[in-house]
Amino acid sequence: MECPVARSLERVGEWWSILILRDAIYGMTRFDEFQKNLKIAPNILTRRLTALVDAGLLERRRYCERPPRDEYILTQRGRDFRPVLHSLQAWGNKHFAPEGVSVMLVDKTTGQPAEPILVDRLTGKPITDATHANAAGPAAGARVQKRLGKSRKTAAAP
Amino acid sequence: MECPVARSLERVGEWWSILILRDAIYGMTRFDEFQKNLKIAPNILTRRLTALVDAGLLERRRYCERPPRDEYILTQRGRDFRPVLHSLQAWGNKHFAPEGVSVMLVDKTTGQPAEPILVDRLTGKPITDATHANAAGPAAGARVQKRLGKSRKTAAAP
Repeated sequence: MECPVARSLERVGEWWSILILRDAIYGMTRFDEFQKNLKIAPNILTRRLTALVDAGLLERRRYCERPPRDEYILTQRGRDFRPVLHSLQAWGNKHFAPEGVSVMLVDKTTGQPAEPILVDRLTGKPITDATHANAAGPAAGARVQKRLGKSRKTAAAP
Repeated sequence: MECPVARSLERVGEWWSILILRDAIYGMTRFDEFQKNLKIAPNILTRRLTALVDAGLLERRRYCERPPRDEYILTQRGRDFRPVLHSLQAWGNKHFAPEGVSVMLVDKTTGQPAEPILVDRLTGKPITDATHANAAGPAAGARVQKRLGKSRKTAAAP
């Protein structure tokens, strides 16, 4: 499976994992905090936390020996998931908040609501259908090369 | 459920839906195209397509009367999902492509690889832990107000 989107999804696992990552980025680290906020069954939470540790998104750290208690700290890989969460949040606010926005991103300095958009770090250009498209990378196999060759004529990324 | 991330996830449904959206953004519209590319069981594909139509991400359009055949066209809401896919792709390329990148976003004009980052459309500032945080919006209920009040001291968005 070469598609980087599919690989990402494989690692995140399922919706619970994304909500756990969201809470971890909010600053939660402990089993009880996640459980209380997510109202998730303990056995499912244990399974999802273990999967996130195995995928290298969280790190388990013992904070109490007796009784044994672990906390879960975001790794760099986990922190790098942040733009996905911002994008999901912006999409949800735009399309699924008919009663108004409950949670919004703000500029800490000014307190003004921020509107996250993707730009190319190198050129500063906003990323749109018109300006950017996917292309086969150096490690692309035959299937990706064929697909991207075909799709670039009709549509764009990702 | 007020969290816009959770609402978004509810609408996208599951991993298959995200991969179908990815293919739709690539320009695919027909059942057979999705099925062939995703290698997905027909009954699951039917269910996921119907869910995406019900959620307003795809629109069903009859393109052949005999036999009856529909195609699936992205709505504006579906197209607006694009930044989520770009973000997932960039994250996957950074962390889960040890052998090198197979699919990469490029600038159509120059052919150079693009590096998507989130900035605030209004100020141009890159969105980071240090500069941006979530805050309760106008429609926030008591639970969100309490959570964001508490979390802003220790951590950041989303």
